[in-house]
Amino acid sequence: MREKLFRDPVHDLIVLDLDEPADALLFRLIDTPEFQRLRRIRQIGMAYMAFHGGEHSRFSHSMGVMHIARRLLDRLDRDRRLDPLLRVAVQCAALLHDVGHGPFSHVIEKFFQDHHEVWTGHIVLTDTTEIHAVLADFDPRLPQLVSDVIAGEAKPAWPSLLVSSQLDADRFDYLLRDSRMTGVKYGVFDLERLIMLLRVSEADDRIVVARKGLLPVEKYLQSRYQMYRQVYFHKTVTSAEAMLMALLQRAADLAGESGEVPCVESASPFGRILAGRQDLSVSDYLQLDDSVVLGALNAWTRSGDGVLRDLSLRLLNRRLFKSWEVANFEEQDLEIRLRIESAEKIVSDAGLDPRYYLLYSKSADTPYRPYNPRSDRAGGTIWIESEGDSSVLMDVKDASPTIKAFTESPYAIWRTFFPAESGGQRLRQAIQGAFSD
Amino acid sequence: MREKLFRDPVHDLIVLDLDEPADALLFRLIDTPEFQRLRRIRQIGMAYMAFHGGEHSRFSHSMGVMHIARRLLDRLDRDRRLDPLLRVAVQCAALLHDVGHGPFSHVIEKFFQDHHEVWTGHIVLTDTTEIHAVLADFDPRLPQLVSDVIAGEAKPAWPSLLVSSQLDADRFDYLLRDSRMTGVKYGVFDLERLIMLLRVSEADDRIVVARKGLLPVEKYLQSRYQMYRQVYFHKTVTSAEAMLMALLQRAADLAGESGEVPCVESASPFGRILAGRQDLSVSDYLQLDDSVVLGALNAWTRSGDGVLRDLSLRLLNRRLFKSWEVANFEEQDLEIRLRIESAEKIVSDAGLDPRYYLLYSKSADTPYRPYNPRSDRAGGTIWIESEGDSSVLMDVKDASPTIKAFTESPYAIWRTFFPAESGGQRLRQAIQGAFSD
Amino acid sequence: MREKLFRDPVHDLIVLDLDEPADALLFRLIDTPEFQRLRRIRQIGMAYMAFHGGEHSRFSHSMGVMHIARRLLDRLDRDRRLDPLLRVAVQCAALLHDVGHGPFSHVIEKFFQDHHEVWTGHIVLTDTTEIHAVLADFDPRLPQLVSDVIAGEAKPAWPSLLVSSQLDADRFDYLLRDSRMTGVKYGVFDLERLIMLLRVSEADDRIVVARKGLLPVEKYLQSRYQMYRQVYFHKTVTSAEAMLMALLQRAADLAGESGEVPCVESASPFGRILAGRQDLSVSDYLQLDDSVVLGALNAWTRSGDGVLRDLSLRLLNRRLFKSWEVANFEEQDLEIRLRIESAEKIVSDAGLDPRYYLLYSKSADTPYRPYNPRSDRAGGTIWIESEGDSSVLMDVKDASPTIKAFTESPYAIWRTFFPAESGGQRLRQAIQGAFSD
Amino acid sequence: MREKLFRDPVHDLIVLDLDEPADALLFRLIDTPEFQRLRRIRQIGMAYMAFHGGEHSRFSHSMGVMHIARRLLDRLDRDRRLDPLLRVAVQCAALLHDVGHGPFSHVIEKFFQDHHEVWTGHIVLTDTTEIHAVLADFDPRLPQLVSDVIAGEAKPAWPSLLVSSQLDADRFDYLLRDSRMTGVKYGVFDLERLIMLLRVSEADDRIVVARKGLLPVEKYLQSRYQMYRQVYFHKTVTSAEAMLMALLQRAADLAGESGEVPCVESASPFGRILAGRQDLSVSDYLQLDDSVVLGALNAWTRSGDGVLRDLSLRLLNRRLFKSWEVANFEEQDLEIRLRIESAEKIVSDAGLDPRYYLLYSKSADTPYRPYNPRSDRAGGTIWIESEGDSSVLMDVKDASPTIKAFTESPYAIWRTFFPAESGGQRLRQAIQGAFSD
Repeated sequence: MREKLFRDPVHDLIVLDLDEPADALLFRLIDTPEFQRLRRIRQIGMAYMAFHGGEHSRFSHSMGVMHIARRLLDRLDRDRRLDPLLRVAVQCAALLHDVGHGPFSHVIEKFFQDHHEVWTGHIVLTDTTEIHAVLADFDPRLPQLVSDVIAGEAKPAWPSLLVSSQLDADRFDYLLRDSRMTGVKYGVFDLERLIMLLRVSEADDRIVVARKGLLPVEKYLQSRYQMYRQVYFHKTVTSAEAMLMALLQRAADLAGESGEVPCVESASPFGRILAGRQDLSVSDYLQLDDSVVLGALNAWTRSGDGVLRDLSLRLLNRRLFKSWEVANFEEQDLEIRLRIESAEKIVSDAGLDPRYYLLYSKSADTPYRPYNPRSDRAGGTIWIESEGDSSVLMDVKDASPTIKAFTESPYAIWRTFFPAESGGQRLRQAIQGAFSD
Repeated sequence: MREKLFRDPVHDLIVLDLDEPADALLFRLIDTPEFQRLRRIRQIGMAYMAFHGGEHSRFSHSMGVMHIARRLLDRLDRDRRLDPLLRVAVQCAALLHDVGHGPFSHVIEKFFQDHHEVWTGHIVLTDTTEIHAVLADFDPRLPQLVSDVIAGEAKPAWPSLLVSSQLDADRFDYLLRDSRMTGVKYGVFDLERLIMLLRVSEADDRIVVARKGLLPVEKYLQSRYQMYRQVYFHKTVTSAEAMLMALLQRAADLAGESGEVPCVESASPFGRILAGRQDLSVSDYLQLDDSVVLGALNAWTRSGDGVLRDLSLRLLNRRLFKSWEVANFEEQDLEIRLRIESAEKIVSDAGLDPRYYLLYSKSADTPYRPYNPRSDRAGGTIWIESEGDSSVLMDVKDASPTIKAFTESPYAIWRTFFPAESGGQRLRQAIQGAFSD
Repeated sequence: MREKLFRDPVHDLIVLDLDEPADALLFRLIDTPEFQRLRRIRQIGMAYMAFHGGEHSRFSHSMGVMHIARRLLDRLDRDRRLDPLLRVAVQCAALLHDVGHGPFSHVIEKFFQDHHEVWTGHIVLTDTTEIHAVLADFDPRLPQLVSDVIAGEAKPAWPSLLVSSQLDADRFDYLLRDSRMTGVKYGVFDLERLIMLLRVSEADDRIVVARKGLLPVEKYLQSRYQMYRQVYFHKTVTSAEAMLMALLQRAADLAGESGEVPCVESASPFGRILAGRQDLSVSDYLQLDDSVVLGALNAWTRSGDGVLRDLSLRLLNRRLFKSWEVANFEEQDLEIRLRIESAEKIVSDAGLDPRYYLLYSKSADTPYRPYNPRSDRAGGTIWIESEGDSSVLMDVKDASPTIKAFTESPYAIWRTFFPAESGGQRLRQAIQGAFSD
Repeated sequence: MREKLFRDPVHDLIVLDLDEPADALLFRLIDTPEFQRLRRIRQIGMAYMAFHGGEHSRFSHSMGVMHIARRLLDRLDRDRRLDPLLRVAVQCAALLHDVGHGPFSHVIEKFFQDHHEVWTGHIVLTDTTEIHAVLADFDPRLPQLVSDVIAGEAKPAWPSLLVSSQLDADRFDYLLRDSRMTGVKYGVFDLERLIMLLRVSEADDRIVVARKGLLPVEKYLQSRYQMYRQVYFHKTVTSAEAMLMALLQRAADLAGESGEVPCVESASPFGRILAGRQDLSVSDYLQLDDSVVLGALNAWTRSGDGVLRDLSLRLLNRRLFKSWEVANFEEQDLEIRLRIESAEKIVSDAGLDPRYYLLYSKSADTPYRPYNPRSDRAGGTIWIESEGDSSVLMDVKDASPTIKAFTESPYAIWRTFFPAESGGQRLRQAIQGAFSD
């Protein structure tokens, strides 16, 4: 037996048996340049600014998602009734679901015409990538099928739900992994038991949680809620993200004005993104990773443009803007508009350009989105057996007051960010004053 | 009370109380650009090629060393008899001991005139760094004292041993941290109990382990041994390191021939290092981090030089050379020389330049180095109380057959590396043949 | 320094420094026969019938409560402004708070005139116990003060809240410990951060959570909720408890009829309890532990009384009654009464005595009880700082929709239990039929 | 699917699928009175006197051994070539291997004619036990086959080695479990990887470790060594065991003199053991558990015999004898004999009976026993592949200097124990004086 062992900090050992065709395929996919690139893209972007342990990559996460998806498949398709190629495709989709992420994903996505999901699709379907070649070499239909699974368009639908739904291998892994790596304990839930308590309802083409899984699902959603509130939406994390966004905007603005960005080759993929060109090929895109952005920041610290230089130094040296929670600025009522104008004036008066020195963010989440007959894929919902009759399914929110409370309290945190070093104390008070009552 | 909490995956919470002058100083040091740079230098270099979880930085490790050193000080200097400034200096030294590391430290060190310890000294002592300014602002004598502690030259010597000896906060943290992050379990030992079992012997100016600490020390050394054998000296890790070394050597050779390195600005710190210039200022040096090297690799994948391009692609895409354990090539006896010549000819015949395609490494360690009256600082040794008389100290190797076995078996692994892809199978056999009997 | 180290599966090392008078006192208390007795009383009673790992004792738990209480005190009374004797008393109270527990506490309590808290008071205050002697030897006022702290009657009140409130060392330890031992993960919360986020409000004589502690408190209450639902109220656990209760009731009924209980000496403390005599001395009471009850069960398996024999064999061999969730039988409306009568008739017709073979339990909890100005000690409430003004305190339920949902959903599970082995299938259907609609 | 989930603190979930005949059989075995009895026998006897967390039972351990053995079988007999009944028998043997343990096993064994292994055989083979009935109901040949596997007499031999050898499921579980429960970290090793690295050599009928398993085996043996030295042979543990032995000896001596033991029914199994009768039936034996012995101790605290009363109080209240490491008293050379006589005289002079108040113990272990062609079953040895030729097997000690050092240093700790309370200080000095040089 030729086995490949991957040691993982969350799942201990992840094993592929190269004598199994599906496993050999996964191993070949891991070995492609496109997948190896994920080693150079951090999983939770700037979150290491607040939680120094959060330095892990999308490579580690993707390995974990593949591992969990395989365990779920082994469990839910024990008797191998699923179409074998779909079964392979689900495993590939789990491994590859994040392969289209760019550097500092959620930040840089703004500058692309397409979201990372679209790039993932391109990478799988374009015949110039090694991933495409490896998939097609296994079966010519496989690239399209993997793309369908990731997009939630394969039939039957339930296997794809293992990769993308409100109870999927992706979330299972990132909660456990981000929790372990950052050292917080909020993301811990009972993965082993949850896996045991899922089943397929073939009539409905859904994944169903056994009734006795209600409390484990509650726990899982509580963990998700805590991770969003305490880690992903942490004020320091959102400040760093807002600053990186402003910095890239400054670079893009300079490109718009002068046609080029200091220290970045115009013809390079990164240069073209900043210049707003939407003609990146897949191969261009795949040259991007965190080190390209960090390399530019490093160079910009010696740039002649004051804003580029200052924001780069701030980010590299973690001189982050202070944050201030504000009222919902989306409402754009008169008072809010006046406050924003007032704050902008204060920043301008301090000699700073408010476009880059007075930043805003909105962090919003619904811990559990209930079934919506108009818009949702049914599979996104978490279905659970009714008490006493396992054949009648209900939305999990109708079985639990705790979960119902989650669906009824989508929340949003609006923040403003601005520099507030010593000397800027006056600025701080003025801005806070502008937003206070 | 103004406290700063750092969440750590190994130590849970690391706390600084800003109302304490020493803590406030440490917090200011963490906030310097020089220390923040450590976020961009990985702790165990290329080891993530074999253990994908090993992606943590020297920043995280340094925080852990500071934390453990503070706990040791609290314990060993409970009654605060130590000179207060020395006490502060030890904490600063623990935090800063790795601040002089360059990118991929042990690899790139070869190209410098000085080791990272020397750069650490420069960074602390040169008056252009913020670290120097922050230290000097606390007390003008502090920069020199911190440097002395790191160099093991402060008196009394025992506090410095907490930062550097065979039983120090540095090793305590890296064994636990590298173990946790890679997901192996080899590095676990009983830190809490070891801390309880240390004491200071003021007469000897040494740290002493209580007799009942013998088994915990055995366990600690066993853990260290396992981590070296299984992680730091893993064949995949050493292969990646050897390849990075060969790649940088190629760049340096090109610089030597043509005066410049493709895609690297000659005037940049990295360009000057590759060109062999030994005139880097501290400020130049501090512009280096992993992203500079990774950025160059990224650019070199599009370089005109075949070797640069090939080795960069291999490293980024993890197409590593195969390794082959060989006999001790240091002995340089006739037979070994003949074998090496024979292997080089095979590589040359395959159209590859043996300088970059036939690589060697030696991984050697002595799990415990016993006391050597001629060369050692006494403090490097682990001293333990004699059975029955705690005032008589002995080298721990004389108290334990297990540890004695470690001192008597320093070991070394010699390896050779070469490309062995499909098609290169013949090459592989030929090289292995050259080294086999 | 003379230190005593206790290795603990939850807290790693618990350390007492015998050169500190308070620590030496605690060590002497641990060494008393009354405290050592807790090694022979399991922490979560019959819960090991459902979670085989739950075999730990109240001794372990009490050590953990002492440890956490000391950490809280070190934190909240850093500058040692608290009356030194009260400070000692709080630590003693934390250690001793469970010393009055009898075997299988919540079950056997029914047969006593007093709850375990009262016995704890007796043990501390009665001058025949070693605990009393050790306390009084330290300071003659100490026994009364310890008793006051446990009863929540000492002034100021806040130190006592560390031992008994809705956010106390007792709950902190049992959630973590029961979770760890049973192997479930539901009880994990962020103890380290919670400890950092508490402060004393001297004006109000309360413990206050800093505003940024809101999410950690939510997590803690979620953990508590999960442990109750999944462990303490597990149907198997409640079945075993109900059966033990019925078995002891049978023994008591026999004592009432014949004046003696088979296999139990009438004059022994256990015999006298079963005979309903309320004249147990503290010294009598302290002869009771789990092994006395288990020893009786062992003997009763050879008893002439069929019910004693059968129920003992069932409990020892884990042939537990099946449980059936039923409607609220407390309401005692006509329908419920008719159903109970009908079920009793079925059991009688099967030749079984419904007093021992048709059992009921109610498991009820309110995950968080909000402040009630009429009945509560204010300290039982969890108080948190208002957003923006740390001097204004609010009940934590008013700061969190999640916690508010907990206060609004006190829940209760009513169950009935009866034998349902092979052969008893008909009985099962009949009973369930009686309770079904 | 009808699955039974057991939550385990070491292995998380242990799952039996009742639709599989082998699993249904195991579930029926767990449900027998004989197996449930193991809940009332602690796994590491008196060790909780030194490590308060070590309160787990042989029930938990046996569940873990079954679980690991099943994982090993799944791995090593993947293609199901093993005789199906032998495969079932190995799983049963793993579950039942400890079912013959008596209370405080290693202590009380001395009073039986047979070791616990023999009783295990009786319980499996005697047709009055439920275990026998359940096994025979599955297949009439099964009881004998299970007994053969436990005794190492089944053919082929390799499956039995999973249950009993120097690398077996028993040791794998107890190292991890005892380590977890006591809270020490010494027993951690890499179970997951070891399982991957085993294979069957059918030609030799042996279990073989792949060459790359050398370091994991070293780690495993180091862990075993640490657990013996630090936990199982801890001085407090051996003191409590020696005292329990002396106490039972006192009871037996009284039975010999007067024909009966205070507070213990003569006709009860425990009474008959103490009276030296060797005619216990299996059914008698199975009435014994820890609570019988603890119940006797409880009663003896009120006994008229001073020695019984005193030793019982000491054990229950943890007033343990002090220990003193002495020279090898097995050598029985003149000097040792004189010292023992001298110490006995001191104890006698103090008014104590040296038979019960001057105790001895020898704790000896060989961390790894190498292959011995004369006496050993080959399978007890750990065989590993040779470097470079996986078909040539070698004793693991010949592949590792570290392990070789273990085989060459079997060690023994001789201790003497005696009371040394305040007032007995003179006694202590006198006894230590007698044994000192």
